[in-house]
Amino acid sequence: MPESDIDQLAKHLSKLPGLGPRSARRAVLHLLTEGRAMLQPMVQELQRLDESITTCEICRNIDTSSPCHICTDEKRDPSLLCVVEDIADLWALERNRLFQGRYHVLGGTLSAIDGRGPEQLGITQLVNRAKDEAITEVIIGTNATVEGQTTAHYIADRLHDANVKVTKLAHGIPVGGELDYLDEGTLGAALLSRQSV
Amino acid sequence: MPESDIDQLAKHLSKLPGLGPRSARRAVLHLLTEGRAMLQPMVQELQRLDESITTCEICRNIDTSSPCHICTDEKRDPSLLCVVEDIADLWALERNRLFQGRYHVLGGTLSAIDGRGPEQLGITQLVNRAKDEAITEVIIGTNATVEGQTTAHYIADRLHDANVKVTKLAHGIPVGGELDYLDEGTLGAALLSRQSV
Repeated sequence: MPESDIDQLAKHLSKLPGLGPRSARRAVLHLLTEGRAMLQPMVQELQRLDESITTCEICRNIDTSSPCHICTDEKRDPSLLCVVEDIADLWALERNRLFQGRYHVLGGTLSAIDGRGPEQLGITQLVNRAKDEAITEVIIGTNATVEGQTTAHYIADRLHDANVKVTKLAHGIPVGGELDYLDEGTLGAALLSRQSV
Repeated sequence: MPESDIDQLAKHLSKLPGLGPRSARRAVLHLLTEGRAMLQPMVQELQRLDESITTCEICRNIDTSSPCHICTDEKRDPSLLCVVEDIADLWALERNRLFQGRYHVLGGTLSAIDGRGPEQLGITQLVNRAKDEAITEVIIGTNATVEGQTTAHYIADRLHDANVKVTKLAHGIPVGGELDYLDEGTLGAALLSRQSV
């Protein structure tokens, strides 16, 4: 094998999340041997996506059109807006199919170190949407991390005058979770948010 | 995101060794956002490799030419031949740079269930090489598994009349390994193959 070509590709693949140098090499080998049949379809899909993908000017999702298919979908509830950190979070909610509103993708959390302020997260754009559109409730779906919660607080603050209800996702015991294995924070939150049966 | 396009690509990626559905989605998202710059080079490398890769008619390695660059390399020792299960094993030995002979890639181990007999592993071809070429030693470098060792025994048997020395890679304590954590088989092999200092 010409080391240069294979190594070049393996090096690129190893930069993908979840792949290291060894698994990248194994992936390249698979693509060039048993998995040879999937190589061309994959190349074409990558090519097509690279040509067609753009960022939605309204919600900052990625799609083949801007505004994206979620923002233009007439069947979705225009009164509900969910704020998420990443596109991956939007996908997770979409797979769940329970949420029928629209989105705002922050693209991260507030971070002075990484140079992400309210402008980078599109928070002014979010506040304007909350004021202009027919939105009645903004659900803040940032991660349950310190950074995610700090960002959630900031957003809730900025939305104070927008005349919308601001909610956040509930904390509690994961479905299927065992009490004995839960951290104290989650157990405490579940206790505080206890519901009558 | 048009679920179909992304999902199609993620589905393909998830078939690569080391990637599952979730990591494949994360990889696709990375390629379409932060990692966008590496997408085109990657597509071109995949394209180029797909057009140029072939199997070496002598050693069954993959390369851009047949015979491959190892079989045609005049600087390599023509008297040494190493038998490996997979191309990945060949790569591992090449990264090590210690072995300067040539190879025979089996493409697996003998397995009645998976329909791999001596013909599929190219063992007749290997025996002919051992007889015809200037080979004086065949190093059997199959894995230290039951299947690998069974295959090694079969190959050693077939090479009996070929007038070559047949050797296999040594068992022993991995460099940096601690005795306390070794399995009994390895420890026993290390003891049996003890060397004078």
